[in-house]
Order: sequence, then structure tokens, then C-alpha cells
Amino acid sequence: MRVLMIGDVVGSCGRSALRNQLPRLKRSLQPDVIVANGENAAGGRGITRAILREFYDLGIDCVTLGNHSWDQREIFDFIDDETRLIRPANYPEGTPGRGVAEIPVGQEVLAVINLMGRTFMPITECPFRVVDALLKDLEETSFILVDFHAETTSEKQAMAWYLDGRVSAVIGTHTHVQTADERILPSGTAYLTDVGMVGAYNGVIGMDRDLVLKKFQTQLPVRLEAGSGPAQLNAVLIDLERSSGRARQIRRIRIDDDHPFMD
Amino acid sequence: MRVLMIGDVVGSCGRSALRNQLPRLKRSLQPDVIVANGENAAGGRGITRAILREFYDLGIDCVTLGNHSWDQREIFDFIDDETRLIRPANYPEGTPGRGVAEIPVGQEVLAVINLMGRTFMPITECPFRVVDALLKDLEETSFILVDFHAETTSEKQAMAWYLDGRVSAVIGTHTHVQTADERILPSGTAYLTDVGMVGAYNGVIGMDRDLVLKKFQTQLPVRLEAGSGPAQLNAVLIDLERSSGRARQIRRIRIDDDHPFMD
Amino acid sequence: MRVLMIGDVVGSCGRSALRNQLPRLKRSLQPDVIVANGENAAGGRGITRAILREFYDLGIDCVTLGNHSWDQREIFDFIDDETRLIRPANYPEGTPGRGVAEIPVGQEVLAVINLMGRTFMPITECPFRVVDALLKDLEETSFILVDFHAETTSEKQAMAWYLDGRVSAVIGTHTHVQTADERILPSGTAYLTDVGMVGAYNGVIGMDRDLVLKKFQTQLPVRLEAGSGPAQLNAVLIDLERSSGRARQIRRIRIDDDHPFMD
Amino acid sequence: MRVLMIGDVVGSCGRSALRNQLPRLKRSLQPDVIVANGENAAGGRGITRAILREFYDLGIDCVTLGNHSWDQREIFDFIDDETRLIRPANYPEGTPGRGVAEIPVGQEVLAVINLMGRTFMPITECPFRVVDALLKDLEETSFILVDFHAETTSEKQAMAWYLDGRVSAVIGTHTHVQTADERILPSGTAYLTDVGMVGAYNGVIGMDRDLVLKKFQTQLPVRLEAGSGPAQLNAVLIDLERSSGRARQIRRIRIDDDHPFMD
Ligand SMILES: [Fe+2]
Ligand SMILES: [Fe+2]
Ligand SMILES: [Fe+2]
Ligand SMILES: [Fe+2]
Ligand SMILES: [Fe+2]
Ligand SMILES: [Fe+2]
Ligand SMILES: [Fe+2]
Ligand SMILES: [Fe+2]
Repeated sequence: MRVLMIGDVVGSCGRSALRNQLPRLKRSLQPDVIVANGENAAGGRGITRAILREFYDLGIDCVTLGNHSWDQREIFDFIDDETRLIRPANYPEGTPGRGVAEIPVGQEVLAVINLMGRTFMPITECPFRVVDALLKDLEETSFILVDFHAETTSEKQAMAWYLDGRVSAVIGTHTHVQTADERILPSGTAYLTDVGMVGAYNGVIGMDRDLVLKKFQTQLPVRLEAGSGPAQLNAVLIDLERSSGRARQIRRIRIDDDHPFMD
Repeated sequence: MRVLMIGDVVGSCGRSALRNQLPRLKRSLQPDVIVANGENAAGGRGITRAILREFYDLGIDCVTLGNHSWDQREIFDFIDDETRLIRPANYPEGTPGRGVAEIPVGQEVLAVINLMGRTFMPITECPFRVVDALLKDLEETSFILVDFHAETTSEKQAMAWYLDGRVSAVIGTHTHVQTADERILPSGTAYLTDVGMVGAYNGVIGMDRDLVLKKFQTQLPVRLEAGSGPAQLNAVLIDLERSSGRARQIRRIRIDDDHPFMD
Repeated sequence: MRVLMIGDVVGSCGRSALRNQLPRLKRSLQPDVIVANGENAAGGRGITRAILREFYDLGIDCVTLGNHSWDQREIFDFIDDETRLIRPANYPEGTPGRGVAEIPVGQEVLAVINLMGRTFMPITECPFRVVDALLKDLEETSFILVDFHAETTSEKQAMAWYLDGRVSAVIGTHTHVQTADERILPSGTAYLTDVGMVGAYNGVIGMDRDLVLKKFQTQLPVRLEAGSGPAQLNAVLIDLERSSGRARQIRRIRIDDDHPFMD
Repeated sequence: MRVLMIGDVVGSCGRSALRNQLPRLKRSLQPDVIVANGENAAGGRGITRAILREFYDLGIDCVTLGNHSWDQREIFDFIDDETRLIRPANYPEGTPGRGVAEIPVGQEVLAVINLMGRTFMPITECPFRVVDALLKDLEETSFILVDFHAETTSEKQAMAWYLDGRVSAVIGTHTHVQTADERILPSGTAYLTDVGMVGAYNGVIGMDRDLVLKKFQTQLPVRLEAGSGPAQLNAVLIDLERSSGRARQIRRIRIDDDHPFMD
């Protein structure tokens, strides 16, 4: 099974980059299933029903979220009805929505788990304990992708080692910068600390850079907005072994003005 | 001028990797000057006088620090005498040591500035204001490398844009994971969000992974130790134009069991 | 000189408590000058021009702020014109408004300094260094009140000891709960860790308690609102020696349904 | 039932104040049961077996802890054997020790629950959910005291309202400064945001004030030590109705050089 995981899509700049690049990427890379993080899709903050449709229409099979899950209040109107839109599973019991999606891929199923770190992040339940419980329910499932939405590299690496051999891949999101540490851990789990983002190449993590700079320099409240102009697209392609679900290969994808896409 | 910047060296595992790899790297890459971050060199915490000598003996010209600057108390005995060991320049006035080093490189001088971010980091002065003041004193200097030791990608990218065209390169440290976003900004500043680290490849950011995992899972106090076993070495090579100091090229270096060094 | 310092006034509930109680308090306590913290006066978030007028009309001579200074965007339209409305002095240079007010009190002047702590608070300049600089400019002034807006008791007590003998009083704000540790430090500075607040007695720090509870329990975004119902009023009365400005007495004031005001 | 709850005892200064004052307090106040927070008893950091004995010998019936629970590593050797020494109940499952003590008081039993807040505190499980589960097991128990060890006033007040009518008292610890907001909530729960501490009156929250000041001013690592000199003792006395366990009265106790104890 070939999985394409796309980093946090930021604002309309990120969405139009998806529209422009995804068809070519699909043709060239032939993924069996596509997952994207959508927590910043609506102007940098959360996701709407209309944007979720856009994602589905582009052929994205599953959308994950993160600390920005609730930024658009309308999400509470539809998240409970969506089976392919997931928010971190370690939000406290009773939180709307779900943390796991099971996506049919040909004859197989890919389970996607969304988790959130706790260091420098909103308060949630222990992601290590929560993932243990989830994996018990997924014992029959060979293909499992974890989107671990976390700030620190240490928490992400710790989770990857914790899950090595128990899931197909642990892919980090949230920092919006792709890391260069892709590898397959000894027991067969593919790992990348952060997949990066899709959005303004000349912004600051996809947001308008003048506004971000103003905020850092003045410490005054500044309403950040998604950036515009040329876009970058960050993703990762993971090949999983037929029946075991073990990762065989992991390959980073970086497309921007300095790195045009080569078919 | 060709600058080799090496990421945070972690513990004896990182130091022995330096000893093993640096001669080959120097032969192959022919850097004119070598800078390394040494904040984790002594068992993961700070640096000692003896280890600093080791760095110099290996041909490292300048050592930068970060939030772990003071972990080894003996540093207060020697930091004021060292001109090539620097700690973040935005520590408050009166802090021992200095934040800028001027390293002779042939007929030229490379100024190295160490700064620290403020988001999720110890309390320091504003790095944007501090670097403005430092650059005023370096107006005659064309070759300037900034080691920006920071947690968040947004603060690092903001600093890079802030300094674009004013320094030769902004290279991030602290997260111990190399990022894949190397680029040359429009006004000629080379940028990489994080250069990564030198240390245990199978640890968690270079520390013993069982201890880190125990800490995350139990939330009990666990004394972390530097990891051991096979090492990784992360660095970045930057080529600067002769008189302008503008960056012409930036190239990431990743050496580990999965990526053996190719001369 | 007799100074009445009133804690953070929260929302319309707090403002109407002020209107109801202040005339009686003034008659009974005969303060020479009244200072109030107004950072939560507008529905719990910031202050407007109209509310500032309300404060002045009630006989409040000086209004201090804190981390909520900028919550109402209209403040940027008038803060530069106000000499008796101050925000923390250790905001970075270039921040609108001022951090010190000099209030005529009969033949004397009371200087009021607003400072903000840094632990678990927004990023600002070092309040210890900033207050040193301010006090240099106030060398001729005997009567100095510091409103130290900070989260932790340790930072507040440290500041009080730092300023003992250099200012008339250090009064904490921000936690909205009055502390019971009023005292006069050995060199003559009156101190109270927190003066408390004016607002809903049955809220959570003056905000609607159901909303606050919902937020703590669900960790979902909840728009907090100022509480309503019966109010409490917290203040502190400080008597300063005629020419030295030394504190002679400090007395806490707590008025609520369980502690009706006794003339 | 009359309960005396004593705030965080800090270092040898605090312990000797206990030895000096407790006999008089007991004679004068005639408590039926005494609880003290001991998280800072050993030089400001944690508690040892010997110090725990000291507490018991002084007639303290139950000792609570907090974020400093594990500062003395020897605690892991004895905490599992102690039924009257408790640490926050919302540490993750598997944490040594227990979070509830049941203390015989004449014919009755006082259940003491230790909980820890999460805002600006170590990562723990949700104290609201945890206390719900604990109270289910204590359904037969009328006398329940909660020591809520938390930083922010909002989290403490929220917990008090959450538990109003379900426990006899919610008493805050951790800030080391007594608050002046003691009250009995409408459904019969006594509440005080923070009971304060027992330790050096002229320190900073019981620690040596010069060291704390040095730390704030330099931001360098400073090993804090418990303060010495004259002590203060903060406690609270709560009277509970015979069979219901409802609070009838709550009275703060503050003893220091400025407030000598009056029998
Ligand atoms: Fe994101
Ligand atoms: Fe995020
Ligand atoms: Fe480091
Ligand atoms: Fe660091
Ligand atoms: Fe406030
Ligand atoms: Fe505040
Ligand atoms: Fe404590
Ligand atoms: Fe504590």
C-alpha cells in the first residue's frame, strides 16, 4: 500500500497549491490513499465544511487535525457526522468527533490515528496511554498511520520508538517545517519528525510574514493571516508491505520555487 | 568563504562521532572555517574546559551554546577568557561571556552571533533588538553567521526574514532534528530552520531513549543521560561570495547508518 | 498621604459595584488619591474610552493595566493622550502609552508605576532593570506606588524586597484574589501580594463560572464572559508618612455578601 | 469535626516553627485532626522519611504533597508503605503512593484528597475527572478535605465550585501566600484559595531571598535554599457539622512577627 501524507494545508494559498499540484503528484506517484492535515485550511485557523468537501473532491481520503481543530466554530455542526475527518484522539472523553478513521484502500483498510503531544501544547490526555488503548481495538489491522501533532522533537521521537513495530508509520505535523530525518525504524515503522506544510513559501510557517514579524517585535496583539504568493507543498510517500503493513520505503516530497516538481 | 556549521554535539557519543567523521569531512568538503554548537557536549548538559579543548583540537574554530550554556558550573571559570566560545547574545547585560566571536578566516573575518529564541525558552532580552545593535557594531563585516537557538519554527523563520540581506546565514539549532528547508532568501541570506545534531542515532534527540520514554510515560523525575551506540552527524555547508558575504549555496549534511558519508 | 488602591475591576458587574461602593468608601476612608486596575473593565477584556471616563467620574485618579491592556483595540486610539492611564512600563520600547503617571495630590505628587511579571506571562523586558531606570527619573519623588501585575507569588515578593525602601508601596494585581500577607517591609515599603478584584462574587475570578468550568473540563474553546450577580470589592488602603513617603500602615479591604462594609 | 490544615512547610525554618507553635495552637484551637502540606519540608524540596516521622511526632495526622513530591529520591523507598502520606491523586496510573488517605478521627473518618492543578504545572490527568471517580468510592464518607495544589486562582476557584456540596472543604496550596478569600460556598463547602506556608518570614515564599532575587535578575542557574530567620505559620481551621460534614466555619490563621499568636 502506498500512502501519501500531506502536511498542514495553510489557507487559500495552500489549498490552491493542492489543487494545482495534487493531480500531477497523483499521476506521478500513484498513491493508493491520501491523507492531509487540515487544521489550518481555513485562513490558517481550522476547517469548514466547504473546505472539507474541497479536500475530498481533490481525492484526499482522510483529513487530520490538531491544536487548531476548533478554530472554526461550525466544525461542531458536522464533525460528528464525518468518518474521514479526525481530531487528536487524546482530547478528553466527550470531545466531539473521533480520533481514528478506517479508510478502505482496495481490499485493505488503512487506519489513521491522530494524536497530539503535550509539551508546549494544549492540555490533553496522555498520548502514549491513549494510543495503547486504540491499538488494542485495531489488533486486526495491519496498516496504521499515526499523525502525531506535536511541538517538540523529543516527544515525537519518543512516540516513534514507542510505536516501532506496532504501526506502519508515525508522521509528525504541526511545526510546518519538513524535517530531513526520514527513516525506517528497526522494527519496521516509518518515521518523519515533521512532514511540513502546504502554503505560502515566503511566509512564516505559511502565515503573512510581516504580521508575524510585527507580533514578535512588538509583542502587541496582531491578527495573523495566511500568507499569499508562491506556494510550497510538503508531503511524504510511504510504501507499506502487502500483508504485514511494515514500511518498506519512506520518501520526502518538497515542491517550491527552488525545487520544482520533477515527474 | 566556505563555512561548515555542525549541529548540537551531544555527549561522548557525539564527540567520538566528531573525532571519527570530521577529518574525512574536512578533506572532502574543504571548509574554510568550522563552527559547532556545543551546548550538550558534556553528557548532554553544557560544556567543560576539557571538552572545549577537544573541539579546538579537532579544528573547530568557534563553539556556540544555547539554553544549556550553564549546565556545567565550571564554565563560569573560563567563559570570560574564551573569545571563540559564545553564548546567546541576548542574555541580560552582565551575563558572563560574550555573544559574538570574530574568527579570522584567511584574510577575512567571519563574525559568529549566537542568539536564543524566547518562545518556550528561558527568559532573555528581545533577540530582534539585540541583533540590530550587534549588527551596528559589525557594519564593516561582510561575513556573518547567526546561530539562532530556538524552539519554534515560526520564531526562526521570522528571524531569517528579519535578517535577510543583513547577514550571510541564519542557521537554527536546539531541536536536534535537521530540517529539510534549506534555501537562500531573496536578499542573499542562507537559511536552515535547524541543522540537527551529532549524537546517538537511536536515541531521542541524542539522549538515552529508554530514559526519555520513561519520563514521558510516568511524568516522574528521570535523570536523562546521553545516548550511546551508532551516531549520526548533522551539519550544513554554506558557500559565501567573496567580498559581499552573500550566500551562494547551502547544502545539508546528514551522516548516519542509513546515510553513510560519500566522499 | 492616604492611597486607596483598588484591584482589577471586572466587567459591568465590577463597574456597578464601584459606583455603589466607592462613594461610601471615600466618605469613610477619606483617601487622598485613588488608583484602580482597569485591565478587565470592558467585559473582562481591556478598557474603552467610555469606561475610562466612568472611572475618572467616580473619582479614580489613576488607572493601571496589565496583560489585558490591548484587548479592546480602540485603546490604541486614546492611550497616547492619557496621562493618568498607564500600562506596564516594561513592555518593549515603542509600545503605545506610558508606564508611569504622576498624579498631583494636594501639594504633593504620587508617582504610580505599572510593571508586569514575566513568569507565566507575556514576554516583556526585565521589570527589575526597568524599574531601576524609572526610579532614577523619580529621584525627587517621595511618594511612589508600584502596581506589579504578575502571576507568581515568588516574583511579586522578590520585587517587593528589591524595592523595599525605594518606593512607598508594592501592590500586586492580576490573580483577582486578595492575599492576606499585607505588611510593611523593614525599610518602609508597604506590600501586598495581590489586592484582589472588583466583580462577581460567585464567579471564577470575576468571570462567569459555568463558562470557566466548561473550559477546564472540556478543554474546548469557550468564550468567557464577565460574571454577574452580587459583587465583591477588594482594595487596600495605605498611609504614607508626610515627607518621606514611607508607609506607616497598610489595611486590606474586602467587601462582599459575607463581609458587608462597616463604616 | 474540627480540622486544622497547615500550609506548605518549607525547610528547617518551617519545621522548627511547627515544633514551636503547634503545641500552643493545639491547646488553643483544639483541632480534632491536623493535616499539613509537606512538599517543601526537606530544604524546600520534597520530604524524607525522617522528616515525615517528625511530622507524625508533632501530632500531624496526614501529610499532603504537590509538584515537589519526588524531589527527595528516597521517597520512592517508603511512599508505598505510608497510608497517611499522600501525593496528588491525578498523577498518572502506576505512580507510586496514593492520592487519598482515610484518617480516623474519633468515631469518624476524614478522607483527605490531594489533587494538582494543570495550568502552569507538571502534566497530570484531569483533576475534575479524577476527583469524580474518587468521590464515587467515598460515597459513604461525610468528611472530605481536598488539598488542591495549583498555581492559578481560576483553576482553584473552578474546582471549589465544582465540588461545592460534595466535599467538606477545598483548600488550596502551592503559592505559599495565604489568600484572604475564605468563605463557605452556598452548598456547604469551605474554601480558601491558598492556605499559605510555614517558613522564613523574610524569605521569598520561604526560600532565601537573595538567591531568588539573583535568579530573577540574572536568569542564571541559582541553587535555591530554604530561608532562615524568623518564621511565619499559615494555617486554616475548619469546623464541620457533626453528621453531614458540611462546613460551618472557616478561619484563617496567620502567625508571624507582625501578628503574634493570641491564645
Ligand atoms: Fe498546523
Ligand atoms: Fe498545529
Ligand atoms: Fe541542544
Ligand atoms: Fe538547546
Ligand atoms: Fe486582571
Ligand atoms: Fe492580568
Ligand atoms: Fe510548596
Ligand atoms: Fe508546589
